[in-house]
Amino acid sequence: MENPPQQLRIDGARLWRSLMEMAEIGATPAGGCNRQALTDEDRKGRDLFVRWCREIGCEIRVDRMGNIFARRAGTDNNLPAIITGSHLDTQPTGGKFDGVYGVLAGLEVLRTLVDNGVQTKAPLEVVVWTNEEGARFSPAMVGSGVWAGEFSLEYGHSRMDKSGITIGQELERIGYLGDEAVQPTPIKAAFEAHIEQGPILEKQDQVIGVVTGVQGIRWYDVIFFGTPCHAGPTPMEDRRDPVQAMAWLCEKLYGEVRAYSEDARITCGDLRASPGSRNTVPEKVVLALDLRHPTPEGLEHLHRTLYRVAKQVQEACGVAVDIREEWFSPPVAFDSGCIEAVDSAVQSLGYSHRKMVSGAGHDSVYVSRVAPVSMIFVPCAGGLSHNEAESAEPGHLEAGCNVLLHSMLNSAELG
Amino acid sequence: MENPPQQLRIDGARLWRSLMEMAEIGATPAGGCNRQALTDEDRKGRDLFVRWCREIGCEIRVDRMGNIFARRAGTDNNLPAIITGSHLDTQPTGGKFDGVYGVLAGLEVLRTLVDNGVQTKAPLEVVVWTNEEGARFSPAMVGSGVWAGEFSLEYGHSRMDKSGITIGQELERIGYLGDEAVQPTPIKAAFEAHIEQGPILEKQDQVIGVVTGVQGIRWYDVIFFGTPCHAGPTPMEDRRDPVQAMAWLCEKLYGEVRAYSEDARITCGDLRASPGSRNTVPEKVVLALDLRHPTPEGLEHLHRTLYRVAKQVQEACGVAVDIREEWFSPPVAFDSGCIEAVDSAVQSLGYSHRKMVSGAGHDSVYVSRVAPVSMIFVPCAGGLSHNEAESAEPGHLEAGCNVLLHSMLNSAELG
Repeated sequence: MENPPQQLRIDGARLWRSLMEMAEIGATPAGGCNRQALTDEDRKGRDLFVRWCREIGCEIRVDRMGNIFARRAGTDNNLPAIITGSHLDTQPTGGKFDGVYGVLAGLEVLRTLVDNGVQTKAPLEVVVWTNEEGARFSPAMVGSGVWAGEFSLEYGHSRMDKSGITIGQELERIGYLGDEAVQPTPIKAAFEAHIEQGPILEKQDQVIGVVTGVQGIRWYDVIFFGTPCHAGPTPMEDRRDPVQAMAWLCEKLYGEVRAYSEDARITCGDLRASPGSRNTVPEKVVLALDLRHPTPEGLEHLHRTLYRVAKQVQEACGVAVDIREEWFSPPVAFDSGCIEAVDSAVQSLGYSHRKMVSGAGHDSVYVSRVAPVSMIFVPCAGGLSHNEAESAEPGHLEAGCNVLLHSMLNSAELG
Repeated sequence: MENPPQQLRIDGARLWRSLMEMAEIGATPAGGCNRQALTDEDRKGRDLFVRWCREIGCEIRVDRMGNIFARRAGTDNNLPAIITGSHLDTQPTGGKFDGVYGVLAGLEVLRTLVDNGVQTKAPLEVVVWTNEEGARFSPAMVGSGVWAGEFSLEYGHSRMDKSGITIGQELERIGYLGDEAVQPTPIKAAFEAHIEQGPILEKQDQVIGVVTGVQGIRWYDVIFFGTPCHAGPTPMEDRRDPVQAMAWLCEKLYGEVRAYSEDARITCGDLRASPGSRNTVPEKVVLALDLRHPTPEGLEHLHRTLYRVAKQVQEACGVAVDIREEWFSPPVAFDSGCIEAVDSAVQSLGYSHRKMVSGAGHDSVYVSRVAPVSMIFVPCAGGLSHNEAESAEPGHLEAGCNVLLHSMLNSAELG
């Protein structure tokens, strides 16, 4: 071993070349990627990853959900593994970095250890999780979800795309219906490198986000029931107008959520009026609402605020407001040991950094249910993701990969 | 002549029987009517009306738009006529009174004069206008519109239903493609009796609305352009959220419109977000807006208020707001002489009443472009119209018909 392990650095140019080579598979004219889960393109991406891993002597396992585990043996393979990874599938108009970066950063870590003859006691693994995006098959993160026990294998196999083809059928067709049971093996620590998918690091001119957890999410359909009437003859004071009630609720709720905490998020991604005729007060307006907060207490506060404001609006506008709770994903706090491993790595490397909470879901959310986890974020241009224009700087991707390398080394004794 | 003309009263029971007999044509299980324009049902309704008019000695003319004119001759038929009427077509799930009442009230007036041997100097006419509803063929009020010169005859004939059949074809098929030119004959005064289609008379416990005009209407598409981003990672202060901007605009605009005048109306009958995914801030929200006011100055004020509030919202939210003007129907002021004829009739009859402005469009809007016009409103239950549950009290219908009788007599010298 030529250098002490603290001096080890990954090869940023090689990492970039790997990313660009992978991005040729399913490349779109607008510069993005369309490599949806379990398509021929996804198969080609998986095959390339497997070939690269075998070239550096990794053992490949594929489980019955098509999750791929590339293992570099340690000197004591009875020790729990240190794992990293993410996903290779993309949105239909996806980018080159979301998910892919986490997989190829893991590969680059292993290559760096091989190049430098560094041997760990515990085995190291790079994982490719199946169908993280949820774009072709709903729900998202189904590969890691089955593995962590959130979904049954039968449920995972039966997920169907819009043309009626299932995950099970496609796994068999593309040759990734593996033999391994879909269940965790002993894991000491797990890390996932990812682009931030938000603008905070770029805006604050910081290179690394030490991710301490994932926001809790609550989804609601808020339904306003009015009385349809003609836009002309009916005086305003006689109306029960669901649009007015919806506007009041949004105006109050946005204000209260923003005033509560800068970590709170409110999004109304969809709204519909019915019957939807310009000169008739609608009978009904449905608002699709997404509330997020990193702490259980904060999310509970937002939840109660919604009910309180809805009651006020109902009384003020005479419009019945019905709240239907559609989904609840509690906040996730990552493992303090893993966070410390990342924090210590980034400090020793000297990169500018901040602790932050992920606003988006990741495979790490499910992995965290069965193993200690943390994540490493790097900036992406304008916070843009799920978009063909998704972009990240080579220097930032290199830095994040160095942090991943040293986080894993901090967790694995040398052999 | 047995009684002086001031003592004349219509036969309310006979009027009610006529309404119920007409309502059997196209009767729906829910108690309403489906007698859409130029269908076989509409032909049956027209045939029944024509038969009733011939039974009392009226001369029938049909013009090339299918408008029917039933004329009771005066003693001097060179004098301009006094006309009344409305429409027999209904919405697909329409009621028994909208339009039909105005036609059969006119018939009942003529019957009453015949029964009592009252002869006027000027001829009297009852008109059935073609396709007022606009439900089968768009636009609404096309029969009176061609007659008044708003549309060409060619335009009127070429209007097409959803199955591709035109008004011209259907007029020929049902035998109502008349020979008369579609143009006004000399008219001294025109009246239209109608259910209010709003709740004001019922709420104020008044029997007659003396209608002084029709609200002006402006239609807009208000389009909010935001920046799509993920519901989780993007801090609130970095967002350009078109839903928030839409809510602010609605909240302010509803407030300003209501504060400006009790005659002002604001309705947002439709709204759409795109792409419409719950966990993505929308790129665009489109609001279909309808503003109404009875005076030109008032409508202009609302129009300017919209532009001012949109500018405020654009500056406060950083969301571009584009206003597209879709339609402008200026306010209509009815003829002071005709209003006076109605007012005088209602005062001599002693019914409770108020002056009011129509919030909905009527054939009288087009008629008013070429002749002096006013309208007579009677209450309908809950203000409900365009609905199978549309309902009006026999006593109110009788009162409105008496007002129509004396309004016409006030305009026509006795012969």
